[in-house]
Amino acid sequence: MKAYKIPEATVIRLSIYSRQLHLLKDEGVETVSSEEIAESVGVSSAQVRKDLAYFGEFGTRGVGYRVDELLGHLTKILGLDQQWNIAIVGAGKLGSALAVYQGFRERGFAIKAVIDNDPDRVGQRLADLTVEPLEMLTNRVKDFRVNIGIVTVPASAAQAVTDLLVDAGVGAILNFSPRVLKVPAYIVLRNVDLSVNLKVLSFNLSYRR
Amino acid sequence: MKAYKIPEATVIRLSIYSRQLHLLKDEGVETVSSEEIAESVGVSSAQVRKDLAYFGEFGTRGVGYRVDELLGHLTKILGLDQQWNIAIVGAGKLGSALAVYQGFRERGFAIKAVIDNDPDRVGQRLADLTVEPLEMLTNRVKDFRVNIGIVTVPASAAQAVTDLLVDAGVGAILNFSPRVLKVPAYIVLRNVDLSVNLKVLSFNLSYRR
Repeated sequence: MKAYKIPEATVIRLSIYSRQLHLLKDEGVETVSSEEIAESVGVSSAQVRKDLAYFGEFGTRGVGYRVDELLGHLTKILGLDQQWNIAIVGAGKLGSALAVYQGFRERGFAIKAVIDNDPDRVGQRLADLTVEPLEMLTNRVKDFRVNIGIVTVPASAAQAVTDLLVDAGVGAILNFSPRVLKVPAYIVLRNVDLSVNLKVLSFNLSYRR
Repeated sequence: MKAYKIPEATVIRLSIYSRQLHLLKDEGVETVSSEEIAESVGVSSAQVRKDLAYFGEFGTRGVGYRVDELLGHLTKILGLDQQWNIAIVGAGKLGSALAVYQGFRERGFAIKAVIDNDPDRVGQRLADLTVEPLEMLTNRVKDFRVNIGIVTVPASAAQAVTDLLVDAGVGAILNFSPRVLKVPAYIVLRNVDLSVNLKVLSFNLSYRR
């Protein structure tokens, strides 16, 4: 399916490296070693070098990476040198939280619409957005060329909403509902289960005592 | 730091396997192969066997795993055979969403308190919980033997709230704020950046065109 066969864990780490590099750049740091990147994100420096090696030769032996340059490469690799338009479907507690979540309003992402089928939620303001009715979903996806649909509706409505998003033309679905969704093979689907974070803590707490 | 040196990616997959096994058990399925587990969560069967091999010999060659038995093992491995008590600090949009999030109310986890310093939020109902003032934090952690503190306050308040949680006796912090937190080495810290999910989609959308 993908042109690049890059492990997902690598993509996740690249996005974490890019965040660290943004912090370093903001602090005025000009060069950084793989050891420094590794330490700041809690992996080995060999891992950092291996992750970057998928995409070519960066940095200079003994000198390290130029922060600006590496950040530029990572931005391109992650596809963040362009804007992805987002529609959130489901303006309940989680959908509303995501609509105002700072990390979803970073460079590269623009939330264009928040949709809900509950008349009590329609018209509600969420930062610079207004919740719109479900009937507007297809038009909004088309008008704003929405690439990514975020599904934060109850499990019972998740597949129907996903079908609407796919038919309207999104390329990717980020699913926060507990429902297993069916999408055509050309759609990028990512399921988020926030409870995994608690389970990782549970594991670590168990083996630390 | 840890008694077991298990890669975090493995722990994350184990928690996903355990969710799949719960689904299979609910469907009345009695045995499952590593191939079937692998396919349902999108990894290779070799990966499934490798992940499980850290913890011993499960399953029978040619027969597979007994769903009930493997689920029991995973539950113990992940530390979900006991209850972890949780306090959420910050009852804004994200904190409120997490307080009612179904995945945080699964077997193994119990949200015991939701705390905020905003008088307008104190007293608000969130499912079976009531938002309590910041002054109650230390007592609630002690009274309910809270193990896990979830930080959903603005970045500016995150370190102060974390210090209060640590001093009160939690063993782990789940940090949803964008702030890098300092904690003693004996505290399990996990930072959640929801924007990583969008970046993985961005990467996949970029290389699929």
